[in-house]
Amino acid sequence: MTSTPSYRIADLFAERARNLTPPTYGTELTKIITVSFAYGLADPILFPHTDLAAASATVLAQEAPTALNYGPPSDQLYEQIILRLRARGIAADRDRVIIGYGSSQILGLLPDVFVEPGDVVIVEGPTFLGVVNKFANAGAHLITIPVDELGMDVDVLEATLIDLKKQGIRPRFIYTIPTFHNPTGVTMPLFRRKKLVALAAEYGVLVVEDEAYTDLRFRGEVLPPIATLNDEGWVLYVSTFSKTIAPGIRLGWACGDPAIIERLAMFKSEGPVGPFVSHVVAHYCATGKLDNHIQDLIACYQHKCNLMLEAIAHEFPSDVVALRPDGGFFVWCKLPPDISANTLLTAASEHGVTFLPGTRCYANGQGDDAIRLAFSFQPTEKIVEGIAILGSVLRELRR
Amino acid sequence: MTSTPSYRIADLFAERARNLTPPTYGTELTKIITVSFAYGLADPILFPHTDLAAASATVLAQEAPTALNYGPPSDQLYEQIILRLRARGIAADRDRVIIGYGSSQILGLLPDVFVEPGDVVIVEGPTFLGVVNKFANAGAHLITIPVDELGMDVDVLEATLIDLKKQGIRPRFIYTIPTFHNPTGVTMPLFRRKKLVALAAEYGVLVVEDEAYTDLRFRGEVLPPIATLNDEGWVLYVSTFSKTIAPGIRLGWACGDPAIIERLAMFKSEGPVGPFVSHVVAHYCATGKLDNHIQDLIACYQHKCNLMLEAIAHEFPSDVVALRPDGGFFVWCKLPPDISANTLLTAASEHGVTFLPGTRCYANGQGDDAIRLAFSFQPTEKIVEGIAILGSVLRELRR
Repeated sequence: MTSTPSYRIADLFAERARNLTPPTYGTELTKIITVSFAYGLADPILFPHTDLAAASATVLAQEAPTALNYGPPSDQLYEQIILRLRARGIAADRDRVIIGYGSSQILGLLPDVFVEPGDVVIVEGPTFLGVVNKFANAGAHLITIPVDELGMDVDVLEATLIDLKKQGIRPRFIYTIPTFHNPTGVTMPLFRRKKLVALAAEYGVLVVEDEAYTDLRFRGEVLPPIATLNDEGWVLYVSTFSKTIAPGIRLGWACGDPAIIERLAMFKSEGPVGPFVSHVVAHYCATGKLDNHIQDLIACYQHKCNLMLEAIAHEFPSDVVALRPDGGFFVWCKLPPDISANTLLTAASEHGVTFLPGTRCYANGQGDDAIRLAFSFQPTEKIVEGIAILGSVLRELRR
Repeated sequence: MTSTPSYRIADLFAERARNLTPPTYGTELTKIITVSFAYGLADPILFPHTDLAAASATVLAQEAPTALNYGPPSDQLYEQIILRLRARGIAADRDRVIIGYGSSQILGLLPDVFVEPGDVVIVEGPTFLGVVNKFANAGAHLITIPVDELGMDVDVLEATLIDLKKQGIRPRFIYTIPTFHNPTGVTMPLFRRKKLVALAAEYGVLVVEDEAYTDLRFRGEVLPPIATLNDEGWVLYVSTFSKTIAPGIRLGWACGDPAIIERLAMFKSEGPVGPFVSHVVAHYCATGKLDNHIQDLIACYQHKCNLMLEAIAHEFPSDVVALRPDGGFFVWCKLPPDISANTLLTAASEHGVTFLPGTRCYANGQGDDAIRLAFSFQPTEKIVEGIAILGSVLRELRR
């Protein structure tokens, strides 16, 4: 027997695997960047590594036979997550919660449960494309509802739902980030939350409420999650420890109708999240230190946000409009009509500064009129330095 | 606006999510079981928890900003895995390796890369159904090749490939567990390995070589992995730390053609495995303690295996044939024609003993003539007690 040269491994690939679009992690920058405002990262100096080390030591000394074995995530982690959900007024129970490798894993499983090719999914514009692209890749037909300074425009949503119903189309779900929205930082007020969930129930569409940043409020009144405004199951609430503990532990969760949770678990085909990490994080949460830690984070991010807003007021042309967030990681800047976000990015990169252009935040091609600046992960002196550089590049572009 | 009662959440589910077949974890036992030989679990008292605690402390003290952040798995973990692969003679490089949440995650991604509904996948009979069911659920048409005391019968495989070729069918891949096979414990000798890979190359079919247990050899000659017997990329080698370090860390890997690795990464849609755990395990491996630990495991499992075989020789009817493995976790027993594995299981459960009936190891409905006994995770006195009970149940069934 000899190998037949006519056979190639590539011929074995299924149709869906022929075209290669691998994930890219930090491979896109070609310039030397000294100040990046691009990513929604926590400040690494704030990771609670000492307390996580204590939790790891306890788990490995006391619970190794369970924590290192096959099995579901720690019961204690479910309890801690359920406590945190209930503290927000959400009806959480063990059969209403799934834990995943980050909330983005769970959001990425939504198409498996809800989307046949061509099904309509409603998203915000701008939005978090990291997740929304997964909906599109699974064959969803995306419809974008504009976001203004009060979050998703629910009147446009209503008109859209009416129009779709006339066409006999029932969207599968509405993906929203109501609190400290990514990328705009805006927060949806209560009246819009109520109207959104009422529309969802009226038109029989699930609301997927992504609350990644909700713990990080540094001003303004705490608002009830949309999930608390409906008791018929029309809201799936999704959150994460990535912004409060650390992303590298990869833990997020969803809470909602048990029929949805069961199906998400079914398509989470590699099985439950790793027992070891789940035990460590559960122990850390159970010490009660997380809430104090979140207060520290809030103080830090509030300081950084204020610093960035002050620097912007000082350094940017007055016709750049920066939205002032009540929490989260981002300042969204609307550019004047003569300045393109991508032209600005190219010019700023030459000076070592980067950010996310608005075009990377819209599923419908818009966004060259805005930029997202993350104040979260740069040290304070870099924030000042970077905004000053951006300001001078903005002025240069006008010469 | 009021909710329209005619809308139900269940109507939103995609066709694939309508019928619910959630994973079951330990929910199947209704009797009180005192000795379980059922699962392929490591002995929890052997988990290297002290050394993992030291590694966790080091990582959190020295590498927290990276280990707790977003990002790929630790570079050091890739290095450690590549070193271990090369020590087996496998041509491993960074672009030929993917790390997953256990090898079962990676095996579960194979259908995404290779299988269109109806495509043929060749499996062993018996085999590890935990993985093979994922191939079937993805729409693969499974063809079972029998396993004898030398592993997969490659002559039957050849006849099958010839027959399929006549029908114009090119199978996508051949899933094999050549070393300390699950469930039979048998090891495929070199001549069969060579013929298997030669057939794969001749017929243009990928070999997926699952080497979960390969480190745990307690007798016999070390054999080259099938992956070392072909340099054209026709073998994807898959292994795990679940049997050597601990399953609760959820780390496995595959090594093979970069075009396959890239595509597996593309369908591993939740992103790279968690940085924290990857750093901890890399540190533990880099201390060099893993190889000593594996020697300890081998001594323990050899003792338990011998104990089980002795007890079987003493307690079972002489016409029950137990296969003697050279490593791994399992003793496979062929039952005489008058005894059904499932009848035996029902009777044994009444006496507090359980095991895996052969029917849970075949994709084609066979297997009521054999049982899998895991010696790996019961303490020695329980092995003796459980085999004695099984022996008396076997004799009872004949009265």
